[in-house]
Amino acid sequence: MDTIKIVKIKEDITSRNNARAKFIRENLQKQGIFYLNVMSSPGSGKTTLLTKLINILRNDFKIGVIEADIDSKVDAETIHNATGVKVIQMHTMGACHVTCQMSNDALNSLGIEGLDLVILENIGNLVCPAEFDTGATKNLVLLSVPEGDDKPNKYPAMFKVADDVVITKTDALEVFDFDINRAKENILRRNPNAKIFTVSALQDENIDKLAFYLRQEILNAKKSAE
Amino acid sequence: MDTIKIVKIKEDITSRNNARAKFIRENLQKQGIFYLNVMSSPGSGKTTLLTKLINILRNDFKIGVIEADIDSKVDAETIHNATGVKVIQMHTMGACHVTCQMSNDALNSLGIEGLDLVILENIGNLVCPAEFDTGATKNLVLLSVPEGDDKPNKYPAMFKVADDVVITKTDALEVFDFDINRAKENILRRNPNAKIFTVSALQDENIDKLAFYLRQEILNAKKSAE
Repeated sequence: MDTIKIVKIKEDITSRNNARAKFIRENLQKQGIFYLNVMSSPGSGKTTLLTKLINILRNDFKIGVIEADIDSKVDAETIHNATGVKVIQMHTMGACHVTCQMSNDALNSLGIEGLDLVILENIGNLVCPAEFDTGATKNLVLLSVPEGDDKPNKYPAMFKVADDVVITKTDALEVFDFDINRAKENILRRNPNAKIFTVSALQDENIDKLAFYLRQEILNAKKSAE
Repeated sequence: MDTIKIVKIKEDITSRNNARAKFIRENLQKQGIFYLNVMSSPGSGKTTLLTKLINILRNDFKIGVIEADIDSKVDAETIHNATGVKVIQMHTMGACHVTCQMSNDALNSLGIEGLDLVILENIGNLVCPAEFDTGATKNLVLLSVPEGDDKPNKYPAMFKVADDVVITKTDALEVFDFDINRAKENILRRNPNAKIFTVSALQDENIDKLAFYLRQEILNAKKSAE
């Protein structure tokens, strides 16, 4: 079997983007705001998970949400109706990722003053968003059971930039050939520092553990600003 | 809830790409080769479905496969071991889609003389590959049950370019809130001409119907070359 490698000449868009992202991150840090960038394939359960987490965390923290979509405003409405927190819908008009400039515009449109936590639900795409630093404090990546435990091997860039990985839809483990230990190994091979969680949003399994972890992260962000 | 729209200025890369793609398509047509571009999210079951289809179709047709991946050669090995047909692995080196130029290089590397069917398994990505015509005779898009029946609304471009849509993993219908009729409506709203199939590759359900349809398409391609 032959292997051909096709190299694409890329402009240095990403490095310019990343320099700007550093400014956003530092600015948010000064204000004690924790900015979470949530990424995954389409249909991995980002919106459902976020709804559950926000409904736990909103008792103690002021939360704002940026919903990035190519089209439609389904997710923004779902989150807004289910949680009542401030939500803004960003349409990327066909673009497959959120750049730092888009992220900055969205933060300004949302209005972040007084917020403790801002969540960006990125475009459903396991490839492109990994290349663009949004200025987020942390990147959280979802890997759903139906997708398969080999995805960290096939989409390495996304798992390299993930601070936290959440294995979702564990209620479907019986139906799919997904080995949690193998998934963890594959994730840690790409990123030995990744924190890994396993949840079922449908059955409310381990959502509290993830919420507890995020609570600490939000408090740390506030503390480091003082 | 506010909505902000972020317009990205795109170079006219896609229109140049599409002009070249027309040449590839016409050239293949003259040779009576049916070229199938298979696209979907990561983990929708492209490789499993293709393995099943190839094992039915290889009795009557000469088949070649191009596996496009960002990294790894897992899928190429799987297809090759399970079917014995000619497979070539293409690494896009981080690129999120297959351009017409990449497609052309891969066809040359594979060697298409004497083939009846060439299958391109595109990068797992429901966004970017939709923008790049690969020169394929037809685009086949997978939508897996765990992803949700709303995906045609959220990723409209992919379903617009799809000639055929295959709803996969129907064996998981009991576990997920997926309405096949709603999915069909959503697909047909984006693309009233799409042919829609529902399959479970795991349980060999309706694979024969899809194979029968592809058989007709391959024969039509041969006939139109004569």
